[in-house]
Amino acid sequence: MGKEKCEKDTICDTCNESSSCNQHEKEAHAQERLKSKLSHIKHRIMVMSGKGGVGKSTISTNLAVALSMDGFDVGLLDADIHGPNIPKMLGIESKHVEGSGHGMIPVEVFPKLKVISMAFFIGDRDNPVVWRGPLKHSAISQFLGEAEWGDLDFLVTDLPPGTGDEPLSVAHLIKDVDGAVIVTTPQDVALLDSRKAVTFSRMLNIPVIGIIENMSGLLCPHCQKEIFLFKKGGGEKAAGEMRVPFLGRIPIDPEMVTDCDRGMPFVIAHPDSEATRAFKEIAYRCKEYVGFKEIGKQYEKERFSYHFKEQEAKR
Amino acid sequence: MGKEKCEKDTICDTCNESSSCNQHEKEAHAQERLKSKLSHIKHRIMVMSGKGGVGKSTISTNLAVALSMDGFDVGLLDADIHGPNIPKMLGIESKHVEGSGHGMIPVEVFPKLKVISMAFFIGDRDNPVVWRGPLKHSAISQFLGEAEWGDLDFLVTDLPPGTGDEPLSVAHLIKDVDGAVIVTTPQDVALLDSRKAVTFSRMLNIPVIGIIENMSGLLCPHCQKEIFLFKKGGGEKAAGEMRVPFLGRIPIDPEMVTDCDRGMPFVIAHPDSEATRAFKEIAYRCKEYVGFKEIGKQYEKERFSYHFKEQEAKR
Repeated sequence: MGKEKCEKDTICDTCNESSSCNQHEKEAHAQERLKSKLSHIKHRIMVMSGKGGVGKSTISTNLAVALSMDGFDVGLLDADIHGPNIPKMLGIESKHVEGSGHGMIPVEVFPKLKVISMAFFIGDRDNPVVWRGPLKHSAISQFLGEAEWGDLDFLVTDLPPGTGDEPLSVAHLIKDVDGAVIVTTPQDVALLDSRKAVTFSRMLNIPVIGIIENMSGLLCPHCQKEIFLFKKGGGEKAAGEMRVPFLGRIPIDPEMVTDCDRGMPFVIAHPDSEATRAFKEIAYRCKEYVGFKEIGKQYEKERFSYHFKEQEAKR
Repeated sequence: MGKEKCEKDTICDTCNESSSCNQHEKEAHAQERLKSKLSHIKHRIMVMSGKGGVGKSTISTNLAVALSMDGFDVGLLDADIHGPNIPKMLGIESKHVEGSGHGMIPVEVFPKLKVISMAFFIGDRDNPVVWRGPLKHSAISQFLGEAEWGDLDFLVTDLPPGTGDEPLSVAHLIKDVDGAVIVTTPQDVALLDSRKAVTFSRMLNIPVIGIIENMSGLLCPHCQKEIFLFKKGGGEKAAGEMRVPFLGRIPIDPEMVTDCDRGMPFVIAHPDSEATRAFKEIAYRCKEYVGFKEIGKQYEKERFSYHFKEQEAKR
């Protein structure tokens, strides 16, 4: 009833006819908007881990950048409400999300990569977001239903660690997730958590694209010998035992820490490094997984047509 | 009314007169039990971080072990519901919590150190705990109100990362927290989150004992030169800027990863290492902070009277 009178595609808070709809109708509108927005997103990938600090945000960021460099339209959703670090890793932490009558406009990193993060909504960077589950669910729901992503080939969602409220919310909201990429570090304690993440994905009927072993070995910058800081090979072993694909190893590179801190995606700053090769391989596996293999070939010619801050990328 | 009839100090679920009390009365009993249990705990320390994977559980474990080696009765509460790793780090992951009519009996690591963790309640180690906020709150409430800790000098609580449901719940439940130890790693992205943790503590009126910089530098095992993997000194800088004490640096030691995985507390396995000195210094600062300075001297003579699996500790 209210629906006929109110403005289509306008979020209820800014609709001129807002008062003519009741709460129930507004919730139905939110659901419709969510459905409509998601229908423009071809493929949905979740990056998750059972444990924090395994480099999930670094991997989400570099995966999204690698996919966009391949010519795909990519959205990157930073679903970590308490520790939203992706904007800092892309050098866009001072940006703000602008609103339109139809919703919020994601921040464009470059034409084929857009980002939404809680960080854009926090005034003081020292302020924590002290929210319980329902409020977090509502925020993630708005990021999905009210963001003007436009047509996307991929939406890469960086989930907060664990198997709690946020991963549950996102999985329930996004629906039809194509697959989850699970990030782990090689030591036993972390592997224990990544195995939980695999089971969690299965419980939610989300296919596991595979496991990535991050922080896998380090070359000493002084003597060039390899140091197994967090041991090595555990990710592959866990993948084998849990019967999910192993997507590859990403070695520790102190440059990666520096790049994250200065807001430069590693795959752009160090195109010939071992870690970049691993990131590209993972991006390839994701494309392959979602059936983009053929379309990928078509894009082959126009690959790397856009160079992000190329001058800065040269060391 | 129900209270007069029912058995004192018995948890309602196992009380023979359970049916004589209504839900409201049972909740009041739970509050009373919580208050009564907490009255036996002299000092309450929370170990927190804004970000996962900074080594919070490792630090909680070694801090608790260091305090108990000093002769104090210590309880270690693993409040990480989704990733409870402390039992593995202490080699007690196969243990189970036993119940009595008065509640659950924490697992004893050695006479002066007891542990409660969600890990003791999960059958299959691969099973994730997929719980939303209210259920997690209820679990933590039971860990505090129904665990038979006995008389404790210190309760060290290892919080899950972030500023969400669990830290909120624990802070609200424990009340009168003596102070929070905040763990960070030195890179900017992690520091951003640790600053949030300081603000979060202040919002909840929990004094900040100080900031620990973990994973601060690494000696190459081949050439013995120092590698600044996650940079260095950021924790001290953040502490200065946020005007909270700086508690010290803990270097990365590949042995620590191995020790965590084999369930051996690092401070026992490597009593003369740089990291152990840092852990002991932090334990000292905590004692000093809660006014145990004088009592500490009294314990001085009987220090290290107990040696945990000494034979195994020798490499």
